[in-house]
Amino acid sequence: MKVAILGPEGTYTHQAAEEYFENYEPVFCSSIKEAIEADTEATVVPFENSLAGGVGKSIDLLREKDVEVTGEHLVEINHALLSNEDDVSNIEKIKSHPQALGQCREIIEKNGWEEVETSSTAKAAQEVEKGEAAIASELAGELNDLNKLETEIQDENSNTTRFLILGDGEVKEGEKTSVVIEPSEDYPGLLHSMLSCFSGHGINLSYIQSRPTQDGIGHYYFYLEAEADQGSEGFRKAAKCLETYSEVDILGSYNRG
Amino acid sequence: MKVAILGPEGTYTHQAAEEYFENYEPVFCSSIKEAIEADTEATVVPFENSLAGGVGKSIDLLREKDVEVTGEHLVEINHALLSNEDDVSNIEKIKSHPQALGQCREIIEKNGWEEVETSSTAKAAQEVEKGEAAIASELAGELNDLNKLETEIQDENSNTTRFLILGDGEVKEGEKTSVVIEPSEDYPGLLHSMLSCFSGHGINLSYIQSRPTQDGIGHYYFYLEAEADQGSEGFRKAAKCLETYSEVDILGSYNRG
Repeated sequence: MKVAILGPEGTYTHQAAEEYFENYEPVFCSSIKEAIEADTEATVVPFENSLAGGVGKSIDLLREKDVEVTGEHLVEINHALLSNEDDVSNIEKIKSHPQALGQCREIIEKNGWEEVETSSTAKAAQEVEKGEAAIASELAGELNDLNKLETEIQDENSNTTRFLILGDGEVKEGEKTSVVIEPSEDYPGLLHSMLSCFSGHGINLSYIQSRPTQDGIGHYYFYLEAEADQGSEGFRKAAKCLETYSEVDILGSYNRG
Repeated sequence: MKVAILGPEGTYTHQAAEEYFENYEPVFCSSIKEAIEADTEATVVPFENSLAGGVGKSIDLLREKDVEVTGEHLVEINHALLSNEDDVSNIEKIKSHPQALGQCREIIEKNGWEEVETSSTAKAAQEVEKGEAAIASELAGELNDLNKLETEIQDENSNTTRFLILGDGEVKEGEKTSVVIEPSEDYPGLLHSMLSCFSGHGINLSYIQSRPTQDGIGHYYFYLEAEADQGSEGFRKAAKCLETYSEVDILGSYNRG
């Protein structure tokens, strides 16, 4: 099956796909939007990071596009030091995405490397030259035939990214259900009332994110993940209750990653 | 009074400060963190944009640092076409922050300009050369003695950024109160129960944002804006109720922007 992925090859999204799918053909795309619009049977999108928070663009595209969420997968972000050089002492410049450079301050400052910013960690691994090293995934190192001079070079170890797997619109079963709710008007206590539909039917929410509707400051929609299958009696009642307050778009059920 | 601002001069944060304060001395900082840590009587930080959503870094720093929210100010983001050239036909390259370039697709594509990315719109205005134009605020054009070849060149007109004004820790009165709540454990219906403290005391929430606590996927704190003064009876009761569920940090009261 074809799977659309935020490229180039060697991104952490690529790593998520490698771990999630057994047999698949990656289709590398230059943006999250392009990946979701691609003519493939599935798409993998970065959705939230344990340090940086929700990926606004992915959440907004779930609301805009007609897609089904069919799975989730967690990847521990372990940065490796990759180079054509075989000794750390030959390195003068360090290349990576600004976020990855920011997560590896210790090793950069200890060695006094000059920093060069790239648009992705995978691109840094592709473009690394003599006297340089890239900070990227081990997968990127393997794909570009680079030496892994060091692994797990990040300052802290609690950096995880959650990816969502988007499918072809088939309804599936699972432990969780993703929902977008978009109230047409706001009034005091509305969010509290909407959440009562879940708590009243014994359903926990594992994630809630407010995002702008693009209609100006003060207008929001909510992306929620409920811990129930969309076909369960509790969820069906909760959805019926929600519909009395808001437009409700059920994006799909899937198992925990 | 000294006010810390995300620089360089001519940023939209600078424009917010120019509009909000009557007499002040700007202190330009190279990051939001540096601005909040600066030894000034006030700080202006970008907080949410009507297209891109909440500014995660600002929200996280309100939780981490001991600051008081004393005001808010809304700025309509109007991009101008700035250049040393006096005719649009002499322009070959367009310089700006990737987000601003993305908001001005029509004019760029119509003219077939080559794009050059910079780290801020204000920096683009500082670095513009012969045969080039920058996309930045009108203020940046004035500060850098550039010609305003066109104004309001963005594709859509509903782009507003909300800035928060942070002060020196003095308790103030106002129509709104910012609060950070951080439950030490999660259980089904917890967010619903916490919000009942507000709805039960007749207080509306105008903004709610979940953010990662940095302790791994699945651990969140909430930033809220309640439509009540922190000294009002309703708010004091709501805070007392909240404290039965969670750690509560009241960041300050201020009037609507």
